[in-house]
Amino acid sequence: MTVLAQASDARVAAVDLAAATRAEKDAALLLMADRLVERADDIVAANAVDVANARTGGSSEAMIDRLTLTGERVAAMADGLRQLAALNDPVGDVVRGSKLANGLELRQVRVPFGVVGIIYEGRPNVTADAAGICLKSGNSVLLRGSGSAMSSNAAIVSVLRKAVADANLPANAIQLLDASTRDSVKELMRARGLVDVLIPRGGASLIKTVVEESTVPVIETGVGNCHVYVDEGADLEKALGVVLNSKTQRLSTCNTAESLLVHASMVESFLPMVIEELVAAGVTVHGDPRVAGFDGVVPATEEDWGTEYLSADIAVAVVDSLDDALDHIRRYGTGHTEAIVTESVVSARHFAARVDAAAVMINASTRFTDGGEFGFGAEIGISTQKLHARGPMGLPELTSTKYIVTGNGHTR
Amino acid sequence: MTVLAQASDARVAAVDLAAATRAEKDAALLLMADRLVERADDIVAANAVDVANARTGGSSEAMIDRLTLTGERVAAMADGLRQLAALNDPVGDVVRGSKLANGLELRQVRVPFGVVGIIYEGRPNVTADAAGICLKSGNSVLLRGSGSAMSSNAAIVSVLRKAVADANLPANAIQLLDASTRDSVKELMRARGLVDVLIPRGGASLIKTVVEESTVPVIETGVGNCHVYVDEGADLEKALGVVLNSKTQRLSTCNTAESLLVHASMVESFLPMVIEELVAAGVTVHGDPRVAGFDGVVPATEEDWGTEYLSADIAVAVVDSLDDALDHIRRYGTGHTEAIVTESVVSARHFAARVDAAAVMINASTRFTDGGEFGFGAEIGISTQKLHARGPMGLPELTSTKYIVTGNGHTR
Repeated sequence: MTVLAQASDARVAAVDLAAATRAEKDAALLLMADRLVERADDIVAANAVDVANARTGGSSEAMIDRLTLTGERVAAMADGLRQLAALNDPVGDVVRGSKLANGLELRQVRVPFGVVGIIYEGRPNVTADAAGICLKSGNSVLLRGSGSAMSSNAAIVSVLRKAVADANLPANAIQLLDASTRDSVKELMRARGLVDVLIPRGGASLIKTVVEESTVPVIETGVGNCHVYVDEGADLEKALGVVLNSKTQRLSTCNTAESLLVHASMVESFLPMVIEELVAAGVTVHGDPRVAGFDGVVPATEEDWGTEYLSADIAVAVVDSLDDALDHIRRYGTGHTEAIVTESVVSARHFAARVDAAAVMINASTRFTDGGEFGFGAEIGISTQKLHARGPMGLPELTSTKYIVTGNGHTR
Repeated sequence: MTVLAQASDARVAAVDLAAATRAEKDAALLLMADRLVERADDIVAANAVDVANARTGGSSEAMIDRLTLTGERVAAMADGLRQLAALNDPVGDVVRGSKLANGLELRQVRVPFGVVGIIYEGRPNVTADAAGICLKSGNSVLLRGSGSAMSSNAAIVSVLRKAVADANLPANAIQLLDASTRDSVKELMRARGLVDVLIPRGGASLIKTVVEESTVPVIETGVGNCHVYVDEGADLEKALGVVLNSKTQRLSTCNTAESLLVHASMVESFLPMVIEELVAAGVTVHGDPRVAGFDGVVPATEEDWGTEYLSADIAVAVVDSLDDALDHIRRYGTGHTEAIVTESVVSARHFAARVDAAAVMINASTRFTDGGEFGFGAEIGISTQKLHARGPMGLPELTSTKYIVTGNGHTR
């Protein structure tokens, strides 16, 4: 079946799904969860095929870990769906409303997009997550997973579609696209008019390709070259804590800090401390000339400032002022998360107003940019673009709006 | 100067403009308005060159009318800027906010996009409008007007830039792009990273080109194949009024009705009446077989159903049910404005929930889809896409948001 045919089916399903009540959608989510648990053995068996292929193909242990499903992990997927059922349904929420001078009643209400396309990597748990988030927000979803997870994804989607149908919602609201060929990605990117929005999740090169080639509107996610700036007079304890946590709490996420900028006045007091702790934590410090003299620091190249390492590396530069820090971030940042550690309200206000990023952390770890941490209950990704959604995207970000205007024969 | 160089300058200006207060921006808008009035003679003289060229080139009277400036029209442009000064500044508005369980304070605040590109037709008044709306919302603007209005636009932008500079805001926040060549449009569409959003205003083919070729995020505007559906049991007076107003109040706007769908039960009571009045108003009625028998009706072709006439024509079809009307609209509509005339709350609810459009009118003319009518005070266009903005776009639609998270050394 072609992507366009699948997209057409998804579009038909979306009309019914848009009209479904929260109760109907929640019942489907709970049934999807139950069925995943019931069929966990089959899903794990299907996953074993993918894992075996990955081992044969020489995938890294990290990739195999992300690919592997166990009974416990399937149960966690089911729990995710149950949590979605407990969240508010954004569809139908009145965003604004008023009565116009002529008596017309104006309401702007949230409506589903219609059909959402998601392109993602070899993490089969994303299949259930994305399907659930789209269903709860009233959208049909076209899932284009990784070729490495084909067998797992087919098993999961088969279970989910059956559950949706048994809950009297359209099974075609959840569809898996062919992951054996790049053609399905290409077709998806050209399905303007059938697909309302495309969300690429994954590496920088995939995202770049989709952003440049897609005629379907795209929400760009993920690349994060996040900075922590330690201001003049910053509290040393807070600064140490925020830097260490931002860099080392988890290395491979987009909200992990990749660069540290230190005010020149803090070179003697703070730099030795933070370098010692970073090195002790196993982090390689790439320093500019004013940092390179410290033990265990390797010289930074121009490339280091623009690199999203996703590894135990950090680039460290000394800056002469807050504005120099802002200039550095303007040049190398990716608009994801930028943090300042400061005791000065003037600095905090200036930084927050001037830095161009989805999230600004004042005396807090960059790792807090996350739908779960923000209390959204669910997250489909973190947008680094400015159009439509910026930062962690929860259920409301998967909706559009519609104006409903009620009169009594009103004319202009 | 290349578009990329102009975009870079606009980007630098945008940083300062984003930090400008409402008072600073309003002062600039008022000065811009005063200067337009002071320099009206120069602007009208520059416009005369464009008008003479248009006459030589054989432009239609309608096009020449849209192109022509008079002292009165320049004064109206100035008034538009003064009205903008009186509107609320969306920048800094807190969209949502909360205190998280760990004590972190979360605020999502409105921020300008940065640099907005606008491509538009030969209406010089749009130059001042667009410049004002972008300035008020804290955005730099790159204006790519029509070649036919080059001399007028150059005069207007020169006056506006001088006023902005004299008001101590960056003149480079307002820039006119070369309209003598298509290359400037191409460069603008590829200026991803320098331009944050592109808004094409104009004909369907321009919009299609930009949507398909731009790597800069686009907000699609304008094409409106709007329908009025007259339901079973509709009040005849209200139906007549809404149909006539939707079609004839102004012929060339995107919110003008282009198709009329009439429930089969209304063929004898309503159809003769509405056809008579439409014909009397000078409208050519293109009817399906059940309509074609009436006096003055020409047979509709398949093409008629999908046409945005922008002229004194209307396509009329009889449908057997509300759902058939919805199917027709799903097939031929452009997602702009769809109206129902009905006395039934059940029909009104069903139509509003099921029809896929930026605006749904219940017993009201399609002509109400308009930023001014909606009380927004300013409008940069009407979005027919679902991402970011849908329907009339006012000042808030020209902003993005930023999360500001404040802690006291918080870590995960």
